[in-house]
Amino acid sequence: SVSTVISLLLESLTSSCHATVPNMLNVHLVPHTHDDVGWLKTVDQYFYGGRNDIQHAGVQYILDSVVGQLLQNPERRFIYVETAFFYRWWKNQPPSMQKAVRQLVDQGRLEFVNGGWCMSDEATTHYSAVIDQMTLGLRFLNDTFGPCGRPRVAWHIDPFGHAREHASMFAQMGYDGFFFGRLDYQDRTNRIRTLEQELLWRASESLEPPYADLFTGILPNGYNPPKGFCWDQSCDDAPIMDDPDLEDYNVDDVVQRFAAAANSQAMAYKTKHIIMTMGSDFQYENANLWYKNLDKLIRYVNTRQANGSQINVLYSTPSCYLQELHRANLTWTLKTDDFFPYADDAHNFWTGYFTSRPALKRYERVSNGRLQTCNQLEVLGGPSSRKGPFGAGDSETLREAMAVAQHHDAVSGTEKQHVANDYARRLANGWQHCQVLYSHLQHEVSVKTKIWIEEYFFNRVCVCVCVCVCQFVRATFDPATGLLDSLTNLETQQTISSFLFPFLNLFISLYLLIPETLHLSPPLSFLHLFHDLFLSLPLPPSAPLSLLPQTPELQEVRQQFGPWVSQVIRLHSNSKALEMEWTVGPVPIADGLGKEVITRLDSSIASSGVFYTDSNGREVLRRKKDFRPTWDLRQTEPVAGNYYPINSRAYIKDDKDQLTVVTDRSQGGSSIHDGSLEIMLHRRLLHDDWRGVGEPLNEMSGVFPLGLVVRGRLLLSLTPPALAADAHRPLAQENVLQPLLSFTEGGPPPGSLLEFSGLQAALPPAVHLLTLSQWGQDSLLIRLEHQFQTKESKEHSVPFTVNLQVYTQYTHICTWEPLGTHIHTLFPSQSIINLFMVILTPMQIRTFILRVAPRR
Amino acid sequence: SVSTVISLLLESLTSSCHATVPNMLNVHLVPHTHDDVGWLKTVDQYFYGGRNDIQHAGVQYILDSVVGQLLQNPERRFIYVETAFFYRWWKNQPPSMQKAVRQLVDQGRLEFVNGGWCMSDEATTHYSAVIDQMTLGLRFLNDTFGPCGRPRVAWHIDPFGHAREHASMFAQMGYDGFFFGRLDYQDRTNRIRTLEQELLWRASESLEPPYADLFTGILPNGYNPPKGFCWDQSCDDAPIMDDPDLEDYNVDDVVQRFAAAANSQAMAYKTKHIIMTMGSDFQYENANLWYKNLDKLIRYVNTRQANGSQINVLYSTPSCYLQELHRANLTWTLKTDDFFPYADDAHNFWTGYFTSRPALKRYERVSNGRLQTCNQLEVLGGPSSRKGPFGAGDSETLREAMAVAQHHDAVSGTEKQHVANDYARRLANGWQHCQVLYSHLQHEVSVKTKIWIEEYFFNRVCVCVCVCVCQFVRATFDPATGLLDSLTNLETQQTISSFLFPFLNLFISLYLLIPETLHLSPPLSFLHLFHDLFLSLPLPPSAPLSLLPQTPELQEVRQQFGPWVSQVIRLHSNSKALEMEWTVGPVPIADGLGKEVITRLDSSIASSGVFYTDSNGREVLRRKKDFRPTWDLRQTEPVAGNYYPINSRAYIKDDKDQLTVVTDRSQGGSSIHDGSLEIMLHRRLLHDDWRGVGEPLNEMSGVFPLGLVVRGRLLLSLTPPALAADAHRPLAQENVLQPLLSFTEGGPPPGSLLEFSGLQAALPPAVHLLTLSQWGQDSLLIRLEHQFQTKESKEHSVPFTVNLQVYTQYTHICTWEPLGTHIHTLFPSQSIINLFMVILTPMQIRTFILRVAPRR
Repeated sequence: SVSTVISLLLESLTSSCHATVPNMLNVHLVPHTHDDVGWLKTVDQYFYGGRNDIQHAGVQYILDSVVGQLLQNPERRFIYVETAFFYRWWKNQPPSMQKAVRQLVDQGRLEFVNGGWCMSDEATTHYSAVIDQMTLGLRFLNDTFGPCGRPRVAWHIDPFGHAREHASMFAQMGYDGFFFGRLDYQDRTNRIRTLEQELLWRASESLEPPYADLFTGILPNGYNPPKGFCWDQSCDDAPIMDDPDLEDYNVDDVVQRFAAAANSQAMAYKTKHIIMTMGSDFQYENANLWYKNLDKLIRYVNTRQANGSQINVLYSTPSCYLQELHRANLTWTLKTDDFFPYADDAHNFWTGYFTSRPALKRYERVSNGRLQTCNQLEVLGGPSSRKGPFGAGDSETLREAMAVAQHHDAVSGTEKQHVANDYARRLANGWQHCQVLYSHLQHEVSVKTKIWIEEYFFNRVCVCVCVCVCQFVRATFDPATGLLDSLTNLETQQTISSFLFPFLNLFISLYLLIPETLHLSPPLSFLHLFHDLFLSLPLPPSAPLSLLPQTPELQEVRQQFGPWVSQVIRLHSNSKALEMEWTVGPVPIADGLGKEVITRLDSSIASSGVFYTDSNGREVLRRKKDFRPTWDLRQTEPVAGNYYPINSRAYIKDDKDQLTVVTDRSQGGSSIHDGSLEIMLHRRLLHDDWRGVGEPLNEMSGVFPLGLVVRGRLLLSLTPPALAADAHRPLAQENVLQPLLSFTEGGPPPGSLLEFSGLQAALPPAVHLLTLSQWGQDSLLIRLEHQFQTKESKEHSVPFTVNLQVYTQYTHICTWEPLGTHIHTLFPSQSIINLFMVILTPMQIRTFILRVAPRR
Repeated sequence: SVSTVISLLLESLTSSCHATVPNMLNVHLVPHTHDDVGWLKTVDQYFYGGRNDIQHAGVQYILDSVVGQLLQNPERRFIYVETAFFYRWWKNQPPSMQKAVRQLVDQGRLEFVNGGWCMSDEATTHYSAVIDQMTLGLRFLNDTFGPCGRPRVAWHIDPFGHAREHASMFAQMGYDGFFFGRLDYQDRTNRIRTLEQELLWRASESLEPPYADLFTGILPNGYNPPKGFCWDQSCDDAPIMDDPDLEDYNVDDVVQRFAAAANSQAMAYKTKHIIMTMGSDFQYENANLWYKNLDKLIRYVNTRQANGSQINVLYSTPSCYLQELHRANLTWTLKTDDFFPYADDAHNFWTGYFTSRPALKRYERVSNGRLQTCNQLEVLGGPSSRKGPFGAGDSETLREAMAVAQHHDAVSGTEKQHVANDYARRLANGWQHCQVLYSHLQHEVSVKTKIWIEEYFFNRVCVCVCVCVCQFVRATFDPATGLLDSLTNLETQQTISSFLFPFLNLFISLYLLIPETLHLSPPLSFLHLFHDLFLSLPLPPSAPLSLLPQTPELQEVRQQFGPWVSQVIRLHSNSKALEMEWTVGPVPIADGLGKEVITRLDSSIASSGVFYTDSNGREVLRRKKDFRPTWDLRQTEPVAGNYYPINSRAYIKDDKDQLTVVTDRSQGGSSIHDGSLEIMLHRRLLHDDWRGVGEPLNEMSGVFPLGLVVRGRLLLSLTPPALAADAHRPLAQENVLQPLLSFTEGGPPPGSLLEFSGLQAALPPAVHLLTLSQWGQDSLLIRLEHQFQTKESKEHSVPFTVNLQVYTQYTHICTWEPLGTHIHTLFPSQSIINLFMVILTPMQIRTFILRVAPRR
């Protein structure tokens, strides 16, 4: 039962934490490694330690070494984070080693934190893909280690800013707390002053507290050890040399420096407990170096207590540290906004990556939809879809590829080019495995040969009638420039006009968003360069407006802005949105300057410096130009400092009109001027930004050294504010989960099933079937979500009840259980009415494992 | 008994070597680390892993890691070399770990090779100090591990050229073979062609074969693994990636590359066995990387045997490899010369270091004498000399400091400046500890306070009568220049004249001996620079000849050659040698050019391109200009390519006259012209030579940035060739073992013992008491040597008999045993007449442990 599990966990936790000393300053040393699931090297290279010429890192050796060292001394502790690596290591271990590791986990000497397949990016990931990757990792831990393998703490020490939706998901997954390392430098300074580096994050406006409340701790040194105490093989800090006969004997010096570091850190936190992260990127490959010196540090520092020292050092873990904070029984400051954008100093805003590698970002997004389709077809097709005349198919390959792609140096675009290629290759491989599965399913329906056409990057659905007017939308264009000059919603009869739309601007690279131009000069003079040389060049249309042959379902207007930027504006008969399909590239660099391209919508809406962006494709946050909700901002970058991640939508509004843009991938955007909304589409840069990647973001296409051409589309919706969510919620969801198209030669054979639904009845529009996938041989994973926030829709922002059995017509439900007890990290059960009826409140996600009878 | 020990060893060896496959190519993988006892970092820094900013290296971690990995898999092997490090590690281990390591040694999984305190330099070390340092290391291994800890193989993989006397000592110590890595590039090319990289070295002309015969193997890649197979954390070679699902799967590639490397290597050796050194400098700090990949390599390569592969790979050790070579029952080529000088290519002769850091070389040499004195006084003074009113004294500190100083980057002068300082500091500390011991001994004789004056760098003994003539020598000087113009031996009435003597030449740095100027240009153009810009500048006397106040015991002539070079020529009444005391420095560098200073003796002797230099202060080798005994030399460096190490003496001769120079430290020298003998005295260089040290040889003195001033002396002896050894053998020995002078305030107190000898009778002049030191509480170590070669002296080159008991009057001999059985690596016993009588033949060294009764 639930209570048994929880008491078991608490007991295990209590017994595995080292004792602290009540009236002393307790320093919790947390040995850890941060293992990127791809960055400068591919995930395979990181695992094996290949290409050590690029970066010295080999995760297989890290786990070998750490486990060996933990076994040597029961006092020692270690935390591990990235299940993608751990899983791989585990399956190569002999049973004797697996047994030993299980024991370490049971005794709390090896503790998993976070525990997802990777440590996901927070700015550019979609919530559904994050939930999938967390599920993959946590399930492995649960299956392998049971309750003691359960991560109690979310641990996002490296992502470049922190999304509220991530905190909300972590809270709902049952984590006790969340730790991270990076936040705006002004924010940190302020929090150090006010002792608010530890806080309570209320991460949803829709979910009832404390359902999305999460204790959040900001780590003192990013995720590094204090200066002078890095004992990894990759560091040069002096080891503890404790032979008193030696010239280099340094125990007194080390103890003194450590006490100074601890006391200094303690001044920035509220309790008598502080945490020190003893590790960093790919450290502990030779864990002996760390542990041998940490053992000595603990011994020598604590020995001084006999001489009156008030410092007590201990091996610890984030959950042991958290337990002590809870015991302190303090009230923490409440925070309701997020931690974007992230700046590491006045002129280094990490906002460029919201757009970096737009093609990869789109490929990841469309792969997400493909994975959901693959999952569902696998359930509907049953075991026979996995093996047949087309070979062996599966959803796991794409699931793992997608999980890896959520990493904070994957879809974020912050990896090296060859690594970006590797992520794409993995996704393509996943598609192939799903393809086999689809083929078998089709094979069941028809014996004719099929030709499948995958449409990866865009999707035309239908066309419209009337010359410039579709069923729901009217658009007019300036005959002189070819630019759109008004947009009308024919249902609500509202029009916005006098806005240059679309308006493409070319930014000279010196303006370029962080961190691409730091190399040009030190930050101080960069400040000047920025003011002097900033250029925002509008791109005028270079060719006459071209009105193409129209069909009753579609009207299309083509615009050309020079040789490498063009746009098609489409009105669809069955859509209330206007589609803008942009094509950008190769971005010219013959002038030696990198460039970024944005589209800017300038409207008459009186937005008053306020705009809205979504968090991970889900709840929407209010943004205000040159403003942060929790501190008095000193704005140093008028553009970069106002950029926020847009995962699926952004909007501006006034009392009358709301203009919502739905994107087809993650992008960065802002509203720099009232009535204006800009989205960065593509970027090509010629200099490294000194943040470790060591190469410029200069993507090429094909075998010729030409810059990459990228295409994408934005969907625009004009509505009154009160009706906006009714439009953009389904619009965004449709955009994420696009249909899989297939074609057969000569049309379907006679007797084919032309229409089919896995559902016995349509779900309420507010409810979305987030996940339907095979779990075990006789079980399914089903996730339902309420996709509206509170108050955003009169019709939909209310609780709905769903009968689970109705939606699983192809399976017989033997039993079901909320995931909260089955794998105890995912969304815990609530509001169960009866065995089949489930209530969903706004923004709630609920997860179920359904035991099913073997398929007929 | 001896036979028991040997059979035990053989059994252990046989059982611990992995089986080989008779008709296949057997590749012996030898995992090893090369741990310099100081080089870029001090020995302490290397042990602890301090100053990893200079070089990443920490020996404590290497031994931790290797032992852990050996325990994990009984197939694995490792060899360890440097006992200075191993000893230190060992004493920090808990009994459980010591027990585990003992088992590894007993089972042959951990094998000691070489086993001295360090891997000594071969060009600049004195044989007595080498024997001492070997004794220190081997004794620890014997005391700790017994017979299974005995190194069977000498292993000098890094020293820069190889001395015949070292091979002779190793043979006499009972090593089965000798492996090294560096030899002249032409020599190697030739030996690869003739399959003579494995050979029999007959290392003495005096000792009867096979007493100084030693199998010698030249390793294939220096001491590194073959290209592409370095799996240390310090290397970037691809690990074996054996998950077949991976993009990076590389097993086939690795196996194929390995087979190619093995087959290619096999073509350069005679047997079906080849050795690969799998390791390098300070490798195996994280041994898991190596072993995990080696395990896989062995598995995957041997698996291919099923498909017809003829390669068999195995973990091995040098002694297991050697065992297989012996089984091959081949006859090896005989070599009787040495492996000096060493050139790594046409213009990189490693001959500069014969002279580098002349002050350190002198300090090391004088410390050697001081250690012998300290040892002897400790024996004579008994336990009470170690502790008393002056504190605690001992000989161990100096013994260990001297042992460390024998390292091939210590006395060689090839270390960084701060490391050279550390060696000197250690020696000084050793002197202090001995000082306490001397003080106690004096205290026993007299209760008066004593003032001790240490005379570190030079030593004046007595003075002579007659104006220009001493008892044995006459010297005349040119009144115009002040230069010596003739030298006469008054006993033999032979005179050499018409030679400019001494003649100091200043070489402009472009001539400088290898490898100091490589940086100036690539070797090819360097060749030109050398020919064009070579300058040899004689330094003319800059001041009138100065004849100082003379005493009956000494005549002294002072010569000044500009502001930074001067010389004093002395004739002593009781000496047959002429003393030349040179003072050089600070070498001026204002012109931006480094400089080397030599003294050149140009005589009328018809030397015909032949000259002679000693090997490690002992046997003398014949050198011929532009010639090597074992291959047809292509001389590319007329000066540097003719330089040889001079440890204690060099000479030229013709039928009538032999001019011998006895040095006070190791120096480099040559005879570039007939009748000429030159010795390099000092060098100051402004550029690094790209051999790893990373700093120029630019020694400073004191706190001011002035170049170091160095002083030294040469002793010249003119004799007929047949009588030369009678003069230079004792002269050199006296020079090494100078008396310790002490002074008391106001003269000795009444009743003091003014004369004292530890010997009951003088030893025969041919026999030298090489070592007398305390061994255990009730045992002494005594080493006697015959210090003449065969045939070099009519009077002395004959066997002598010594009665051990006579020479140990202060101890009662209970029993004694030859060291060969007691610690089975040192010189084995031979020619025992009875319990006390010992025969010594020319150049023989014999070692005994004497059990003694507790002192009266």
